[in-house]
Amino acid sequence: MSDGNGARRPLRVAMIGYGFMGATHSVGWRQAPHVFDLPEGVEMAVLVGRRPDAVADAAAHWGWAESATDWREVIGRPDIDIVDIVTPGDAHAEIAIAALDAGKHVLCEKPLANSVAEAEAMLAAAERAAGRGAKAMVGFTYRRVPAVTFLRDLIAQGAVGTVQQVRAAYRQDWLVDPQAPMAWRLQKEHAGSGALGDIGAHIIDMTQFVTGQRVEAVSGTVETIVTQRPRAAAASGFTGTAGEGYDEVTVDDAAIFTGRLSGGALVSFEATRFATGRKNALTIEVSGDRGALVFDLEDLNSLQFYDRTAPADRQGFTKILVTEPQHPYLSSWWPAGHMLGYEHGFVHQVVDLVQAIHDDRQPHPSFAEGLSVQRVLAAVERSAANDSAWERTEVPALATGH
Amino acid sequence: MSDGNGARRPLRVAMIGYGFMGATHSVGWRQAPHVFDLPEGVEMAVLVGRRPDAVADAAAHWGWAESATDWREVIGRPDIDIVDIVTPGDAHAEIAIAALDAGKHVLCEKPLANSVAEAEAMLAAAERAAGRGAKAMVGFTYRRVPAVTFLRDLIAQGAVGTVQQVRAAYRQDWLVDPQAPMAWRLQKEHAGSGALGDIGAHIIDMTQFVTGQRVEAVSGTVETIVTQRPRAAAASGFTGTAGEGYDEVTVDDAAIFTGRLSGGALVSFEATRFATGRKNALTIEVSGDRGALVFDLEDLNSLQFYDRTAPADRQGFTKILVTEPQHPYLSSWWPAGHMLGYEHGFVHQVVDLVQAIHDDRQPHPSFAEGLSVQRVLAAVERSAANDSAWERTEVPALATGH
Amino acid sequence: MSDGNGARRPLRVAMIGYGFMGATHSVGWRQAPHVFDLPEGVEMAVLVGRRPDAVADAAAHWGWAESATDWREVIGRPDIDIVDIVTPGDAHAEIAIAALDAGKHVLCEKPLANSVAEAEAMLAAAERAAGRGAKAMVGFTYRRVPAVTFLRDLIAQGAVGTVQQVRAAYRQDWLVDPQAPMAWRLQKEHAGSGALGDIGAHIIDMTQFVTGQRVEAVSGTVETIVTQRPRAAAASGFTGTAGEGYDEVTVDDAAIFTGRLSGGALVSFEATRFATGRKNALTIEVSGDRGALVFDLEDLNSLQFYDRTAPADRQGFTKILVTEPQHPYLSSWWPAGHMLGYEHGFVHQVVDLVQAIHDDRQPHPSFAEGLSVQRVLAAVERSAANDSAWERTEVPALATGH
Amino acid sequence: MSDGNGARRPLRVAMIGYGFMGATHSVGWRQAPHVFDLPEGVEMAVLVGRRPDAVADAAAHWGWAESATDWREVIGRPDIDIVDIVTPGDAHAEIAIAALDAGKHVLCEKPLANSVAEAEAMLAAAERAAGRGAKAMVGFTYRRVPAVTFLRDLIAQGAVGTVQQVRAAYRQDWLVDPQAPMAWRLQKEHAGSGALGDIGAHIIDMTQFVTGQRVEAVSGTVETIVTQRPRAAAASGFTGTAGEGYDEVTVDDAAIFTGRLSGGALVSFEATRFATGRKNALTIEVSGDRGALVFDLEDLNSLQFYDRTAPADRQGFTKILVTEPQHPYLSSWWPAGHMLGYEHGFVHQVVDLVQAIHDDRQPHPSFAEGLSVQRVLAAVERSAANDSAWERTEVPALATGH
Repeated sequence: MSDGNGARRPLRVAMIGYGFMGATHSVGWRQAPHVFDLPEGVEMAVLVGRRPDAVADAAAHWGWAESATDWREVIGRPDIDIVDIVTPGDAHAEIAIAALDAGKHVLCEKPLANSVAEAEAMLAAAERAAGRGAKAMVGFTYRRVPAVTFLRDLIAQGAVGTVQQVRAAYRQDWLVDPQAPMAWRLQKEHAGSGALGDIGAHIIDMTQFVTGQRVEAVSGTVETIVTQRPRAAAASGFTGTAGEGYDEVTVDDAAIFTGRLSGGALVSFEATRFATGRKNALTIEVSGDRGALVFDLEDLNSLQFYDRTAPADRQGFTKILVTEPQHPYLSSWWPAGHMLGYEHGFVHQVVDLVQAIHDDRQPHPSFAEGLSVQRVLAAVERSAANDSAWERTEVPALATGH
Repeated sequence: MSDGNGARRPLRVAMIGYGFMGATHSVGWRQAPHVFDLPEGVEMAVLVGRRPDAVADAAAHWGWAESATDWREVIGRPDIDIVDIVTPGDAHAEIAIAALDAGKHVLCEKPLANSVAEAEAMLAAAERAAGRGAKAMVGFTYRRVPAVTFLRDLIAQGAVGTVQQVRAAYRQDWLVDPQAPMAWRLQKEHAGSGALGDIGAHIIDMTQFVTGQRVEAVSGTVETIVTQRPRAAAASGFTGTAGEGYDEVTVDDAAIFTGRLSGGALVSFEATRFATGRKNALTIEVSGDRGALVFDLEDLNSLQFYDRTAPADRQGFTKILVTEPQHPYLSSWWPAGHMLGYEHGFVHQVVDLVQAIHDDRQPHPSFAEGLSVQRVLAAVERSAANDSAWERTEVPALATGH
Repeated sequence: MSDGNGARRPLRVAMIGYGFMGATHSVGWRQAPHVFDLPEGVEMAVLVGRRPDAVADAAAHWGWAESATDWREVIGRPDIDIVDIVTPGDAHAEIAIAALDAGKHVLCEKPLANSVAEAEAMLAAAERAAGRGAKAMVGFTYRRVPAVTFLRDLIAQGAVGTVQQVRAAYRQDWLVDPQAPMAWRLQKEHAGSGALGDIGAHIIDMTQFVTGQRVEAVSGTVETIVTQRPRAAAASGFTGTAGEGYDEVTVDDAAIFTGRLSGGALVSFEATRFATGRKNALTIEVSGDRGALVFDLEDLNSLQFYDRTAPADRQGFTKILVTEPQHPYLSSWWPAGHMLGYEHGFVHQVVDLVQAIHDDRQPHPSFAEGLSVQRVLAAVERSAANDSAWERTEVPALATGH
Repeated sequence: MSDGNGARRPLRVAMIGYGFMGATHSVGWRQAPHVFDLPEGVEMAVLVGRRPDAVADAAAHWGWAESATDWREVIGRPDIDIVDIVTPGDAHAEIAIAALDAGKHVLCEKPLANSVAEAEAMLAAAERAAGRGAKAMVGFTYRRVPAVTFLRDLIAQGAVGTVQQVRAAYRQDWLVDPQAPMAWRLQKEHAGSGALGDIGAHIIDMTQFVTGQRVEAVSGTVETIVTQRPRAAAASGFTGTAGEGYDEVTVDDAAIFTGRLSGGALVSFEATRFATGRKNALTIEVSGDRGALVFDLEDLNSLQFYDRTAPADRQGFTKILVTEPQHPYLSSWWPAGHMLGYEHGFVHQVVDLVQAIHDDRQPHPSFAEGLSVQRVLAAVERSAANDSAWERTEVPALATGH
């Protein structure tokens, strides 16, 4: 980035929010410039939160140069180039729109918003801002797990032929215990929806990303398995600890839905927090007339490839360890067989955002892609409310990062 | 079995049909008396088919003492005790009803029939016959894979607690190739339905069997992915070879449906012949508030058990090799770690049927259970025809082999 | 087989011994003619054992037409064509030599003998008998697990290139419990050796079979981990039950040795009954300059193939389900994905023996191959007794079933 | 750390060397203070290398404040507290001894040295320095993969009972290609030894670490499979690219050895760079009379635990996902099921070193432990040179990080 005098200065980042996603994004900003050769410098400038002491502590711990409590003031600062939004979903729209209108590049955690209307407003802001060169990106980082990016590449190369069926599931079990306490993720006013919006959003995005197709219609069921939970004693940690009394769970625990892709294939989706023993089991299987590909986030350095064009007696699922220098993102990391983990996707997200800013092109996933996920989520809820009858998603044709 | 003079004579079996299931049932009849200690002797008496030469050859090859072409005559013979029906589904009802009315014990391959009406008539015949001591059993042999029987036992013992979700899928890929020729399994008049009735029936039965609950309602989609196929040259083998011209596929290739169990849990079902690379992948996962159990027919000597009551740092899926003498059926086979295969379930089916006849009690799965599967299949088809709206299955409470 | 009048009559088999291997061989003789198209008929004629009642019961249960107690008399009978020896190893040599000298075809369970001297005498008898058309075969049935046969074929086709390393292990855990009682397999006078001779023999044979090379030299260690065990109350079952007092274990519990193949590659061998949790884990991994192959008997319907000639970003271990009709032995069994088990190797052994007799050619594994295993075992013991210094095995070049 | 005026200042680190290990150690120093709550601050002060431009570039890229070319000068600087040595092994001894004698804490990459004599001198220096409060630590970071640390804890808690056998292997395949060019790791003068010293060292250390026992004696074989390789064009990357001509490989490609632990159990070891398809397959399996534990670095977020004390029909290998907050190091990272990768061990290494410095206690692995590995390596080479006869390692009793 050039300053007023033509001298290069690094891109300066303000991050709004400092929960779990604040920690992961901080790793991204911290590692990317020291592992990859970025075309622009990056500075972790300001961390913004509501409680002054807590945000100051977080900033110091994570390596942000300053902390602040007024996000409006921060996005008004001329020395800030990128606004990274990691708040709960109910604050995304207001902050993102303001930041974009202030000419900042915006990285917004997924899901883009808590409603289609919010997401539409955000897309409109992104389109306005695009004319002024500002970029807007949604944080579906699982696209940037090397094995997922490579799976997308293989499909684009025709490795599975015509997609005929897809299975996508995201299974966790952190709510199986009926005594797991209430959390903001279980409250409709903060989280918008439950398993559907939180983890279902990931598998909708991943399906569209890897196939390059839209989910055009859905038929689904959503379910709240445990309807009351102990009041949370304090917002400490991911699930918190239990206090006295009970609160109503106002979001779903599980969603099961079938989708129809623009190319015609059926997709079975499941998003659940009640898959006992499954900790973070995002799985996708794409079946085509020439082959199949399978990914499992609990084994994230590999993918399985079945090649129907191989000799009949040698066919089988090949477990490709996606750690070779030829694989996406890998040449900047370690030798083959040295594994990457969960947070590496956040590093790659920074790499790709900075590269897109440098190249002055739209990074993926765009806000349009984020909105498309929102539309699918809304259609699932409509279908569920209408006895599972099929609902059109009204997702327009769009680029999906290919 | 006692003859008229009080002397013991073996149970004499007539098998109607001699396709793929004829081969597997023959193994069952041949092996059971020589591996297990049966309370009654067994004789492979007559094999019945339409083409005299072919059925004579099959009888000689498989070890049946005689062959015959008129099934009505055979079931009228007083020396026949058991009629084993392995014809295509469209002939099940007529033969089974006649055999039961003739006072024979009947083993009928699954699915019980091609329609609910047929299955109802068969159940009525079974109930009439029961009064005269005749037994009727449906051939859902996967119940008798030791790991499946043991999975059912573990659930009955409370190993998973309250069932909160079930996932059941049966995935094959023998139709992925659009040039795979027409076969009777792809014709509605013979097979009744496609993936849904053939392999979907297995996962409906297995779900009801292992949970001890009924599928009360369903919402589903059925799909024919390849709608025309090369005319089959000859009925040679499982898939046959291609001849000239094309025929219409009149059954489904894939069915995706969601079910509601009598205990309230949701079940996701998938039956497909288009899961590229999956050869015979029947999988079931039962999630409860105390644990989870997973079975995969492609790894049929084991099951996975997750115990949520174990210490937090030692929890995980335990791969239990179901080959210990303590496991169902195993003490008559080999030492631990010596694997069983696909056809062993057919041996166990014979063992259990003969034992039930000896004990004069109803074996499972009963025709009532077979009918219940038929009702679920019909409800899926109604739902699919009605925009996937939920349909009641009208399955009454019933014993499920527990 | 033709009788004196030129009429065809089936091959008639006498089996000597009726322990665990008696049960598996009986399945082989019972199933082979009814599943495969054998060129000769087969009859289970006589079962021979020392205790008249017990052997009569076993004969009746397993389907042998007669029983007898005097093996010498039986092998003298003109109506017996094949003698199948499944006694403990200390009786192999005497029976096999007598049978061969009597002009019978002989199938002898592995290991061929309890000593090199015995095995040499047996080979001499086999060579004498060969001139008169009698065949001699050793029962290394794991060669006939379809995945193992196919692994051998792939190596012969060059799929791994030049073999550079081999790892072969056979791990069980039935002796981990120090209270597991004494058994004949733990007594040198009956078993010859322990883990080394019993299960180590399998991995030596399999290594030679799949690579087509000899083990030329070895350096090894043998170990008795639990040196005393409770006296067995009765010979009931595989491990028996404990009685009073203790007996000395006179064979090894575990053997670890390194071998050098005739082609130069190193092989690491492990045979142990103390691999806690491993029930029947025979594994072999062959690494070459073009690829690698891995087999695991606990997952016996598949093998893993790594193809170094594939594109760099698509390499990985392919899990080939060895259940396709193109795979060895499979076209006579079930459709793809329908699994075989442990005893199927015994069926294939009968198929291959009968075919070899019909074709008048030597079946594999020959007694020469059985002797070669014996020489390797002896060399391991010499090395172990000599501070693990390398010992030549003196195994001559020989055909290994290729 | 307090400065002369009693004020706290961070620990300042100089790192000598900037190859592959320089990158991984840099991640460790960069991440540890921002993810964990360290009791002392940490500063990446100086990066030292021989080529001024290259080291300056590396310093800038990785985030070291300065670069320098004279390591002696740097270790003489009073503002440097910790010297981190990541050079090839032939420089370890000189630098480490000088740094310790200069009163610095030393972290030295494994293997500790290229010879026992060097390692002894280093230990002597560490012992001299210990009296002045300086700490010395060897970089066996795989100890700090959470699953490995937890495996050690489980053994210490008695989860496997008495250790009866261990299998430890480190398998890679980056040398299978005979055209892979020469590299310093293949030259005895730089690397000391080949697969044995490089990756064999890891499995020796891990065996001693997890069992808490010494390797007392060994019998082994070492082998150079490809004896000449293309001359390297340039030291670019891990394996380099080929130039003209050939150089002699002067180290081993593979080592297979058997060890005897101080508790009596046998260990089978294999270190190889010729295991086609195995990229970084460090595996260890510990079998005891109460259970077994298995770890595989290619699946590094989990371990397998077999509990022989569980009910007989529920025993099996439990795949424990070692990502729970109760597991070592995990509470500072992500929620359960969010995976860690290869470099996280380097972060944990910094955490533990800083904590030990703060607490003024010896961190593990100590130089005594590093020397013990060196002695085992030397004994393997002596045994290999003496026809694989057993050699005593002369490793004294020592603390192994328990």
